[in-house]
Formats: sequence, structure tokens, C-alpha cells
Amino acid sequence: MPRPALVDSHLIDHVEIVPVAFHDKPLLNIAGVHGPYVLRTIVIIRMADGTYGLGETYGDAQHIDRCRRVAAQLRGVDVFNIAAVHRAVRAALADDPGTGGHGMSGMVTGSDTVDRVFSPFEVAILDLQGKITGRPVVDLLGGAFRDRVPFSGYLFYKWAGFPGAQPDEWGEALTPGQIVAQAHRMVQGWGFRSLKLKGGVLGPDAEAETIEQLRREFPQMPLRLDPNGAWTVPTAMQTIERLADVLEYIEDPTVGMDGLAEVARAGSLPVATNMYVVAFAHLPEAIASKCVDVILSDHHFWGGLRRSQELNAICKAFGIKLSMHSNSHLGISLAAMVHLAAATDNLNYACDTHWPWKDPEEDVVDAEHALPFVDGSIAVPGRPGLGVELDEARLAAMNQLYAECGYTERDDTAYMRSVEPDFDPSIPRW
Amino acid sequence: MPRPALVDSHLIDHVEIVPVAFHDKPLLNIAGVHGPYVLRTIVIIRMADGTYGLGETYGDAQHIDRCRRVAAQLRGVDVFNIAAVHRAVRAALADDPGTGGHGMSGMVTGSDTVDRVFSPFEVAILDLQGKITGRPVVDLLGGAFRDRVPFSGYLFYKWAGFPGAQPDEWGEALTPGQIVAQAHRMVQGWGFRSLKLKGGVLGPDAEAETIEQLRREFPQMPLRLDPNGAWTVPTAMQTIERLADVLEYIEDPTVGMDGLAEVARAGSLPVATNMYVVAFAHLPEAIASKCVDVILSDHHFWGGLRRSQELNAICKAFGIKLSMHSNSHLGISLAAMVHLAAATDNLNYACDTHWPWKDPEEDVVDAEHALPFVDGSIAVPGRPGLGVELDEARLAAMNQLYAECGYTERDDTAYMRSVEPDFDPSIPRW
Repeated sequence: MPRPALVDSHLIDHVEIVPVAFHDKPLLNIAGVHGPYVLRTIVIIRMADGTYGLGETYGDAQHIDRCRRVAAQLRGVDVFNIAAVHRAVRAALADDPGTGGHGMSGMVTGSDTVDRVFSPFEVAILDLQGKITGRPVVDLLGGAFRDRVPFSGYLFYKWAGFPGAQPDEWGEALTPGQIVAQAHRMVQGWGFRSLKLKGGVLGPDAEAETIEQLRREFPQMPLRLDPNGAWTVPTAMQTIERLADVLEYIEDPTVGMDGLAEVARAGSLPVATNMYVVAFAHLPEAIASKCVDVILSDHHFWGGLRRSQELNAICKAFGIKLSMHSNSHLGISLAAMVHLAAATDNLNYACDTHWPWKDPEEDVVDAEHALPFVDGSIAVPGRPGLGVELDEARLAAMNQLYAECGYTERDDTAYMRSVEPDFDPSIPRW
Repeated sequence: MPRPALVDSHLIDHVEIVPVAFHDKPLLNIAGVHGPYVLRTIVIIRMADGTYGLGETYGDAQHIDRCRRVAAQLRGVDVFNIAAVHRAVRAALADDPGTGGHGMSGMVTGSDTVDRVFSPFEVAILDLQGKITGRPVVDLLGGAFRDRVPFSGYLFYKWAGFPGAQPDEWGEALTPGQIVAQAHRMVQGWGFRSLKLKGGVLGPDAEAETIEQLRREFPQMPLRLDPNGAWTVPTAMQTIERLADVLEYIEDPTVGMDGLAEVARAGSLPVATNMYVVAFAHLPEAIASKCVDVILSDHHFWGGLRRSQELNAICKAFGIKLSMHSNSHLGISLAAMVHLAAATDNLNYACDTHWPWKDPEEDVVDAEHALPFVDGSIAVPGRPGLGVELDEARLAAMNQLYAECGYTERDDTAYMRSVEPDFDPSIPRW
């Protein structure tokens, strides 16, 4: 767009798309089990003067290919024109069928491809805008509603270690008692003041028993359970009835908006989702059917930080509460989540994070600027931009690990089938 | 909020609330007639180094009082924390009953008091942020979707002049032919490429006849009619049927969301409103009832530019189109409307403006930076902030005029009754 040269010009010089891998733990879920490596993609938008902005997204091959197509369109785009970046993404994906590359192992397949691909570029642009203007990203989003962002400890049933390998430092968690021990470690290590259990693994009775043991052990702790659509509506009704006084919300108790609506109508617990309302196109039906009380936002598939603020506005207008979803992620996404959460007035719950499951030294951001957990929260960094800086040596090592690890997409079901050939990920399961 | 001093501090030093008046024309509407003066309030947020930001809002006494209460709360607030400014507004209005001070002579009474009072402060803050960062406001809103913002010429039935005064330069417009002449003057003078007629004055048949004459005279020109809720549902149905092939939309054809919904269901024309869906609290009912196809946004009552972007997001998600409403305004609001419209992807129609009805020399912004109309559009200014600068001498003169004019609120009905004592503003009227 031609514009009088009355303000400084800040143009994108080039964009790097760097796939990386880091080590994961054998965390169990409805789709199977986490494999040994998490794949992520780092988006680095660079200006000619050396200033750069960082974004982080999924690492599936198809998604990386899309990001590369976008990157090729961005040279010369003004970093203060997010609308122009969005146009470039739409142009790069104009002939894309939009299928696949979701990065979430089949658990979230309805997200919008343009929004999902746009997200890391928008985060990197905001990081750049912050660095250029000397403001933290939260200020570019309208300013902070909170100065600390609380996270919840994310509990997983898990194997002791990967098949053929030594047990990891967390060990096995396949019983209520082992989950309670895991919870203690989470609370002691990071100070979390709420806990979430990934369900859909042992079945509703064992998982309800786990929640009840957590309640006995942590009488005041807000608790959530996420079976990822594992249950039929009757099973969901029955299990929720049992846990009605124990949970702050139940996440994706059954399959689809119709199922969630039935459960929500019973009114025993707030119903949350990050599986069935994952794109703006889903909101009219979700709101008309009153199928959810809480949406777990996630800037990685809702189209970045400003689009997530649009989600916030819509939810606020319709009385829907917000929580925040997490995948396995690195320090760039953690920072983005913190800035967004701080700027989001209608965020009513502690945010999810997989953070404790990762070696803190295995990251692409430098250790000096890593955001520390204190009492389960992260203080909103006051530095310009996201507040994290790239560690080029770490980035190179993790890119090397990506090249060597032999994986090109996340597939929890395939990994589970390498151990249990008959594993069936279908839902509802119980 | 305590924050590490890692970025420059930009704090509000003090805020000036300056009521001003400028000369109006006797423009007729459903509530009566414009009086001789438009009252507005200029909000000037100043930093200690002399940098200032500008906002403009209604001039009713009660509204001015509310703005002054907010201004007293803002010293020391960080200009990059819009959330903190919003908190200050809520605090200042905590004990406010929220009634009155709407600034729109009874035609829009449902707007949210916090949003309405917050608006000029938010605009001034964004102007300041733009000046500090060297970016035009449109960039702070996410960047421009368009580089020129089209406006529509706003036609009014009017008296030749105020009672006892000479006819003004526009003369009388009480017949279809006189409105056609007014339209020619608008198109020739400003280059408008769409036209809007303020209705609710002569009754549906005469107004439909006026529209039909405009169509014959301007065969390709998009036309709109706004009777401001003047008609019963049957009258609305009948009149819309007559004009179905002529108008791009019909604005507030009848009273209330239920009435609009009935008209909208008939489907003859898109139904627009700026009377019955004027706050976020109205959106759930409006969307559920499908009562409107188009919302006329207005940052003056929707809570500023970023809140108007939230409205845009909601409308986009639900397939509602956006247009933009206007009251009589000065150059600050014109600039704010241009930046907002440029950043609003879902704005599907030319924006309303009362601009031609004002003497261009009578303004608080300096002539050098005034935004010119070319072909009915205004180019988005590329200067930092809103792109307009205060003319202190003009501001002082218009503040003086406010003090001398003898009016303290807009009351089109009272002014009409000074001429026609039995005038009844009730709706529906026909």
C-alpha cells in the first residue's frame, strides 16, 4: 500500500522457518501416547538492521511447508501492517485444500488453516513491533489486566519410560496414587495452585477415583479433568454427577457440540472444550446451542494474539468464560501465552501448560531471559517485545535433533500402536 | 501495577476536558431539529514533555461532568496501558447511575455509559501511543485493510435557516426536488459516491418519493434511508417493498429489536440499526433474533477504537455487516473514524459523516493537517498518531462560544418545540 513516507519504514527483510525437536515423555492420552520427540517450528522474522521477531508453532511437515510458502511472500511487508501479513498468508494458501497439518495428532482437526498458519507470523510481528517501539507485547494488545499469569499443573497418566529405555525422572503414573505423587512434585517444583488431569486413558471410574484422591490430598486446589471426548453422553452424565462437587470444569466430556450441549444442559458442571469449538466458524452454532460454558483458547490455532483477543470479545459478549489450552511448547510460546493472558480480561482460569514435562535447558530461547515460575505463575515480562531472546546455538542443536530424530509429524496413535498394535483411538470409548 | 523499569516510562501528566461549540444548520429529524450549536467535548491527555493526545466526544453537561471525573483519576497512568485507563473510568463511574448524558437527543439511549465515557480517553491514548512510537493509529489497530476510507453524503430535510435568521447557504430542503439539489451540491463539493437521507420527517410516502427522485437523478449511486424508527411494522413493510430495488439498506425502519426482526424476516432489504443495537449487552438478543443485517458502529458509544474492533470481530463471526454512524463532529473524530475504518476488514459500506454541514474553518484541529475529501473518500494519514494537531487559538474561541451559546445539552425536541409547541417526538409515528 503506498503511503506518504512520514513515518519510519520497518520492512521485513527475510523470514526463517526452522523446524526443531526436543525430548518428550511417554504421556498417555485418548489418541495414544506422546512419542520421544516434540516437533515444533520456529518462525524468525528479520529486518535488515538485525532486529528479529520470534514465533513458535507446530512441527508437522505439512504445516512447515505451509509456513515456508508464507515466508516467501513476506519480504518487504511493513511490520506494522498485520493486515498485510494476513493478506500474504491468505495469498500463500489460496490453493491449499486446508486439510491436514493440524499438529495435534487427530485430537483437534477443525481448526482454521489460515488462522493456524498465520499465528506464528503474527506473534513474531508483535515481538518485532514491541522491540521497535520499546514496549512489551502486552502493551500492544491494550495493556495488562494482570501482572502475573497463573498456570495449572498438567498431570498425565504415563509409562515409566519409553519402551526399551530407562524410566524417566517422573516414573510411572498409572494409578491414582502415582498421579497424586506426580501432583505433589508439580506443586512443589513449580508452585501450581490448580491442577488438570489428562483423562481418556484409564476409563471414567479410575479417572474419577484419581480426581477424588487428588481432592483428598489437596482439599482447596481447583481441579479439572479432560477426557478428550472419551465418554458417551450417559457415561459423561454419570461421571460428572460423581465429580460435580470436586471439579471446577469438565473438559470435552463427550463427542461433538450436540453431545456437549446435552451434558451442558444438565448443568452439573461447567463444560469446557478445546476440541469442538476451535475456530471462529464454530462460534455461531456453539453459542446458539449453548454447548459450552468455557472455551480453552489457544493462540496457535485461533490465529495469533489479536485474533485470540477477538475470541475473548465474543466470549465476553455471550457470557462464555475463557481458559487457555496448551500443547508441548518452548519458551517463545510460553512468553506469547503470558502476554496474551495478561491482556485478556475474560480469562477466568489458570492457563494450561506442558512446561514441567520439558527439560528447561532444552529450548531455543536463552537461559538468561527464560520466564520463571513463581507460585505457579509467571510475571509478565517488562522487556520490549515478547521478552525472550534466541539462543542460536541451541536453535541449531534442536534443528539438528529434528533432522536426526526421524519424525516428521506428531502421531500419538502410531507410536502407541508400535507397542499395542490393536490400539483403537476411536471415541467415545466408554 | 509494578513492572521492572526495562522500558521507557510514558505517564499521563494531566488531562484537560474542554467543552466547545460550533455552528449547526436546522437539520430535521425524528426528534425535532438541530439547534444553532453543536456541543462537543475535547479531551486532551498531556505528558510532562509536552506530547499530547486528542479525543472528541459529546458535549452534554452530564457527560462533561463524567469526563472530568475520569480525568481526575488519570495522572500517573501509563499511556501504554489502555486496560488501566479503562479501570480508571470504571472507578470514576462506580457510583454513577448511568442514566442520561447520551448526547444524542433521545435517539440513542441504550448505549453503555462506561463505554461512552471511555471512548474519547482511549482515542487520545492511541493518539499519544502513535506519537510516541512514530506510528499512525491505524497501525496500532493492526494495520490498514484499505488506504482510503469512503464516506457517504448525508442528506437532510431542513429549514432554509434558523427562525429569525437569514437562510443559510444550503437553503430550504422540504421537497424531493430540493433534496436532489442538495445531493448535487454534496456530490459536486465532496465527491461522495453514496448518499444517505435522514428520514422520519415528512412521512414514508414523501420520503420514498424523495429516494425515487434521487435514484432517477443518480442511477448508479448507492442510497440509504434512515427514518429513525418512525414507522410501524406494516408501514415499514410497505415502504420497504416500494424501495426494495432502490436502497442498499434501510436503517431503523421501526421501533425495537422485535420490530426490526419482523422487518428483517421479510427479507426485502438488509435492515440496519444504530438505535437498538448500540452496546455489547444488546448483541446476544440481536444475534439470536436475527433482527439486523447491518450494525452502524460508532466508536463514540461503542467504547473507542479497540472496542469497535471487538464489535467488528463479533459481527464478522455472525455474518453481520458493518457500516459507520456519525453525529455532528469535528476533525478529531473524523480522523479517529478514518483510522478505525481503515483497520476494519468487515466494514462493508461507506461511512456516514455530517462533515459538509460544518464550516471547515470552525474546528479545533489546525487547517494544515485537516484531512481532505477526495472523491468522497479520505486517505488514511501516514503521520504518527491520529495525524491531526490542536489549534490552541481555535480551541479557545470554540470554548468561548460554548460558554456564550447558552446551551448545555443537545435537545432537538426542545428546539423544535420553540417553533412548534405541540411537536411530539413519539415513535412509531406513521
